[in-house]
Amino acid sequence: MQGRFISFEGTEGVGKTTAIEQLCARLEAHGIDYLRTREPGGSPFAEQLRAILLDPDTKINDNTELLLMFAARCDHLQQVILPALQRGKWVICDRFTDSTIAYQGFGRAHGDEEVRAKIDSLIGQFVTQLPELTLWLDLPVLEGMARAGKRSAADRFEQQAAAFFTRVHKGFSVLAGEQPERIQRIDASGSADEVSVRVWQTVATRFHLS
Amino acid sequence: MQGRFISFEGTEGVGKTTAIEQLCARLEAHGIDYLRTREPGGSPFAEQLRAILLDPDTKINDNTELLLMFAARCDHLQQVILPALQRGKWVICDRFTDSTIAYQGFGRAHGDEEVRAKIDSLIGQFVTQLPELTLWLDLPVLEGMARAGKRSAADRFEQQAAAFFTRVHKGFSVLAGEQPERIQRIDASGSADEVSVRVWQTVATRFHLS
Repeated sequence: MQGRFISFEGTEGVGKTTAIEQLCARLEAHGIDYLRTREPGGSPFAEQLRAILLDPDTKINDNTELLLMFAARCDHLQQVILPALQRGKWVICDRFTDSTIAYQGFGRAHGDEEVRAKIDSLIGQFVTQLPELTLWLDLPVLEGMARAGKRSAADRFEQQAAAFFTRVHKGFSVLAGEQPERIQRIDASGSADEVSVRVWQTVATRFHLS
Repeated sequence: MQGRFISFEGTEGVGKTTAIEQLCARLEAHGIDYLRTREPGGSPFAEQLRAILLDPDTKINDNTELLLMFAARCDHLQQVILPALQRGKWVICDRFTDSTIAYQGFGRAHGDEEVRAKIDSLIGQFVTQLPELTLWLDLPVLEGMARAGKRSAADRFEQQAAAFFTRVHKGFSVLAGEQPERIQRIDASGSADEVSVRVWQTVATRFHLS
């Protein structure tokens, strides 16, 4: 039996890491074999590309960045995600294609239609498997940034400003509107445990778990 | 005044390197400022990707390779080719998009239409400048391989077999048929000096040089 492919999405500081940990703990308690992974990265070669993409000293143009992002994604898919799904594992992925649209398409390019068309074309031609279920952790941008600010190192994406994250947030919102079946909005306010319960209810309902 | 963009194409051993050197010498003699470059590579970042792409130990799938190739190309274009053309330099490039179609589309994928469509889509969306003139050095495949065999180290592409190069050759031939205005076939048999004269006649005619 084929495994389930679930991605988590959201702007900085919405609590993805904790929500993923708690979902994985619940899957474990239900005897479900899972693989936890992340993007960009997730396979040895893609993690090498991740290091380049997130390095604040990397000076590459937007097209180059987009193509590297999808090169990493293709490797991650072929080497890690698809084999795990074929072995019946559930794959829990921290970010996937929606982050590319939200960050590069809306955040960087202000929702520019040409950039969105490029990303959609790359997804259509190179991404052979999309998540069955995407959990969009939604929190007001400033609240998320305040949470993220408590963490230590700011990487290249985190250095960007509030206006940027507002555009990224809009990107997720637009995507959720376009694909309401796949993308489920999760209210990420409140405590980690409260968010975790909301995530579990959504997953359990979708996949008929008790 | 905008410079001219010329690429050289062909299978292994057809004598591209020597033909490029001799063209550059003639441009120099005509007082034409030129930049000599190559693909994959041509900019510092793209050369890093070139090292990955040509390393015989690199194990990546075809999609990942294709996207890395175009990531390198976008960097090369933005950092090197377009600025040089804007400064009025002639850009002489050892391989460009046609090699991707011939090697990945025909050589690797046996002229598979889906792969060709992917490459054409990447060219259409990410390659903002094509060469004005492409010189395809054409030599029977076995003759080229015999010439190439005299050289020392065999890289990942050169390790492939004669059947592969026969398909690559067909790729160049198909491309030349599709775009006869841009791609000029040059008979690459005979001595380096003879080939060089043929190259110069083609370039001088196209760009009205005496």
